[in-house]
Amino acid sequence: MFSYKVDEEIWIELFQIHHKEELFDLIDTNREHLRKWLVWVDKRKSPNDFEEIIPIWTRNYADNNGFDAGIRYNGKLVGMIGLHYIDWKNSTTSIGYFLSEEAQGHGIITRTVSSLLNYLFSTMKINRVEIVCAVKNRKSRAIPERLGFVKEGIKRDGQWLYDHYEDLVTYSMLSKEWNME
Amino acid sequence: MFSYKVDEEIWIELFQIHHKEELFDLIDTNREHLRKWLVWVDKRKSPNDFEEIIPIWTRNYADNNGFDAGIRYNGKLVGMIGLHYIDWKNSTTSIGYFLSEEAQGHGIITRTVSSLLNYLFSTMKINRVEIVCAVKNRKSRAIPERLGFVKEGIKRDGQWLYDHYEDLVTYSMLSKEWNME
Amino acid sequence: MFSYKVDEEIWIELFQIHHKEELFDLIDTNREHLRKWLVWVDKRKSPNDFEEIIPIWTRNYADNNGFDAGIRYNGKLVGMIGLHYIDWKNSTTSIGYFLSEEAQGHGIITRTVSSLLNYLFSTMKINRVEIVCAVKNRKSRAIPERLGFVKEGIKRDGQWLYDHYEDLVTYSMLSKEWNME
Amino acid sequence: MFSYKVDEEIWIELFQIHHKEELFDLIDTNREHLRKWLVWVDKRKSPNDFEEIIPIWTRNYADNNGFDAGIRYNGKLVGMIGLHYIDWKNSTTSIGYFLSEEAQGHGIITRTVSSLLNYLFSTMKINRVEIVCAVKNRKSRAIPERLGFVKEGIKRDGQWLYDHYEDLVTYSMLSKEWNME
Amino acid sequence: MFSYKVDEEIWIELFQIHHKEELFDLIDTNREHLRKWLVWVDKRKSPNDFEEIIPIWTRNYADNNGFDAGIRYNGKLVGMIGLHYIDWKNSTTSIGYFLSEEAQGHGIITRTVSSLLNYLFSTMKINRVEIVCAVKNRKSRAIPERLGFVKEGIKRDGQWLYDHYEDLVTYSMLSKEWNME
Amino acid sequence: MFSYKVDEEIWIELFQIHHKEELFDLIDTNREHLRKWLVWVDKRKSPNDFEEIIPIWTRNYADNNGFDAGIRYNGKLVGMIGLHYIDWKNSTTSIGYFLSEEAQGHGIITRTVSSLLNYLFSTMKINRVEIVCAVKNRKSRAIPERLGFVKEGIKRDGQWLYDHYEDLVTYSMLSKEWNME
Repeated sequence: MFSYKVDEEIWIELFQIHHKEELFDLIDTNREHLRKWLVWVDKRKSPNDFEEIIPIWTRNYADNNGFDAGIRYNGKLVGMIGLHYIDWKNSTTSIGYFLSEEAQGHGIITRTVSSLLNYLFSTMKINRVEIVCAVKNRKSRAIPERLGFVKEGIKRDGQWLYDHYEDLVTYSMLSKEWNME
Repeated sequence: MFSYKVDEEIWIELFQIHHKEELFDLIDTNREHLRKWLVWVDKRKSPNDFEEIIPIWTRNYADNNGFDAGIRYNGKLVGMIGLHYIDWKNSTTSIGYFLSEEAQGHGIITRTVSSLLNYLFSTMKINRVEIVCAVKNRKSRAIPERLGFVKEGIKRDGQWLYDHYEDLVTYSMLSKEWNME
Repeated sequence: MFSYKVDEEIWIELFQIHHKEELFDLIDTNREHLRKWLVWVDKRKSPNDFEEIIPIWTRNYADNNGFDAGIRYNGKLVGMIGLHYIDWKNSTTSIGYFLSEEAQGHGIITRTVSSLLNYLFSTMKINRVEIVCAVKNRKSRAIPERLGFVKEGIKRDGQWLYDHYEDLVTYSMLSKEWNME
Repeated sequence: MFSYKVDEEIWIELFQIHHKEELFDLIDTNREHLRKWLVWVDKRKSPNDFEEIIPIWTRNYADNNGFDAGIRYNGKLVGMIGLHYIDWKNSTTSIGYFLSEEAQGHGIITRTVSSLLNYLFSTMKINRVEIVCAVKNRKSRAIPERLGFVKEGIKRDGQWLYDHYEDLVTYSMLSKEWNME
Repeated sequence: MFSYKVDEEIWIELFQIHHKEELFDLIDTNREHLRKWLVWVDKRKSPNDFEEIIPIWTRNYADNNGFDAGIRYNGKLVGMIGLHYIDWKNSTTSIGYFLSEEAQGHGIITRTVSSLLNYLFSTMKINRVEIVCAVKNRKSRAIPERLGFVKEGIKRDGQWLYDHYEDLVTYSMLSKEWNME
Repeated sequence: MFSYKVDEEIWIELFQIHHKEELFDLIDTNREHLRKWLVWVDKRKSPNDFEEIIPIWTRNYADNNGFDAGIRYNGKLVGMIGLHYIDWKNSTTSIGYFLSEEAQGHGIITRTVSSLLNYLFSTMKINRVEIVCAVKNRKSRAIPERLGFVKEGIKRDGQWLYDHYEDLVTYSMLSKEWNME
């Protein structure tokens, strides 16, 4: 019901329980594509798995501690974007996102992240936004690089991915550096 | 951040903590106007009173049990609309609303309720929507009457209003009766 | 252990865990009779189903928000009566009840409701008591009608009953109208 | 509302919030009398102190873990009786009680404890009931002694009473020893 | 990680989840020996049974309400010792313990309890320490008797042990009686 | 009561409520020294401020999610060390520490962190340990640098310190790199 307008084609939508089939299909039809970098994919075995998770996501939003929402492109659910947490003490947050395979190539994530940055810096007065990706995840890294984030460093063995560790790279954007569109 | 588009001029927005000043001003500048039929007005003495309530409203939404959100008319916060609860067992909900004095006369509540009914009946598959008003609250009653609700009955002494009881009148609209725009 | 004396033959008793077999028998031996108007009957499959529910009922009483208790007629458990909630802000409550098939014809519910009304109006200073029944539930409707309740209106599709909606009728009694016996 | 009948003159009643004035008066008019052996008396400074405690007592009852209730003698609130806990694993409980000064001399506590023992042993199938009193509390000790409890031992420094330790004496009655009236 | 030094050979250690296998082996290799006086032994069927219990034990410690910890003798886990509760109002606590069969004969429990008493009386300013054993549990009774506890009394049918009641005997030591080593 | 032995002079101790005065003195006598890099110092105004916090720290330990404990040097409380969290999914944790001004110069933190690393890598099988310091906090940075941690990167504006942002530097040590003493 409640969404955030990125631009004429793209909206970010807070999920409700009745989105569970649509969300499961998005995951299920992109399992191999998403599994490469997301460890939770295997745990989502049926739409009902989302009955418990969706309220947790929205409660996070209610507690002003981030959100996990859907990305709609011309009405179709094509991915997700969220704030992992909001550290109000240090005015810092961290953006995560994924996109279905078929929806790539339209700059959807770049446009969505860019719009979200406007909101975070201008409305929510956040000072620092992080994007953390697996070093080898070229596509995910392209987003912060394209948007002018600063590469801050490598977290060695930062993430356990099924049967091995991956190094993570941290990018950040500060409020003073972001030119508001 | 997350809103629901009613039409080109009207949006329903889920509140966040940073809306507390704006929301307090709406109440504070309409105290006498709102006090007539709303008992909680006196309790809102400062913006900080909303720091505790806003998360409760959004958690209600997270629990799929209704919401309390702001109505924006051409960007300005002019009132609130909400679902008091959602009784999923009997597929029933109840709409409440108020509007600032100066925003009256544009059919804002009628347009907002009408759009909300579309969403409730088509997307959330609700069967029955109630609107309950004080019998003497002519303006509030005009909304369900204008939208073709059926008057079902009077709750005698249904509401304690400061120092006396008011009778309430219940209107309802069923999914099968609502012609979807 | 704790009961409320209606009259020489009838008591309302707060359940304890050790009542679970007796309560299950009451339901189990009246399944078809109760199923007509009560949707929860099918969920009670064994005495242990009540181990979780009985404490919830008594906690409701502890929170001054109503109760669900047994009706004993000459010592035998013959039905239940309860207050669905107590809306202290508007001094309103709503009574529900059921009776085993074999215990009908003794005015047990009428006598019990009447005594409960005395207590609600005189001791708990409640102003308004509702009784809501399915329109087609003749027997249940006879109670408020016999006790002089005022019929206030019909809730169309007010209750989902297994595979269809039933209309509900609301009756109310106000403190000032009830002649205290 | 809910009580337990001891005999024609004595009832044990579960408190509700609207008993708070009556209960406070009982304590307030017996402060010195009760202070001798009860450390919590000083904490009860106004009826509102009981608004929080009464629901806790009844929730204890809801959890099948004992109760704290009022003793009425010919309708007047004259004292309290309770089960401190119920240890279902070892089928053991412990009775506590106090009586207003003016209500002494009618065997109220003896009659009440005796009736409670009937209920504990016959209905709740408790095996062992303890009564623990301060060694120097002659009046309190008279109850178990009169009812045939067995003196089991002394807890040295068992209770801190304002500014010093008191020894406690434990009495017990087993189900097999209690002759059911 | 965190332990309490009794003497050069004996430590009391707060369990962490990674101790679950070691703890299960201790129980599993002493089932018959421990079953004589401990009813919970049968419930521990696998190391994972301790995943839930260990945090509960440490939370008890966090709440300053006692602890359940391991006894290590020359590094090997040989038993457990704990405070069932701490009644701060009456400055009283109660010690429980068990030891593997093969670790008997080294005075491990006596030395551990003695050291714990030093800590309870000197650092935690406890006034009264109880040890309660089954009357027929000669070995367990030898500890308080050897350490000079005073036998206070017998709790008849104090404990349900599988299929029958056992009498319990209470010993106590007061701070003023304990000669600090 | 429960401690972790670093070496003959240094112990890490889990706090209990009765440590509150000692802990407050440590903070109070080092206010200016600690305020430089720790924002919470001003909030600790009296020993009682620790009554609420100490149980929270130990509950964190109970939940296997890190700890905050005292550092004793020859018995005297000279500082604190802790694990901010334990991310078991990615086998990562982060160490924090502070030391009183007068206790500097004995390598206390280096020896304590070194010993803690042994425990984290060998017993708790952690893979990655982070230490994050303010870039300008030379003394704090000396610890990871002395222990061979790898500098991974700078978090620009990583911490809000009273009235300005500080950059933070992240160091990490991986299990495979740490030579176990």
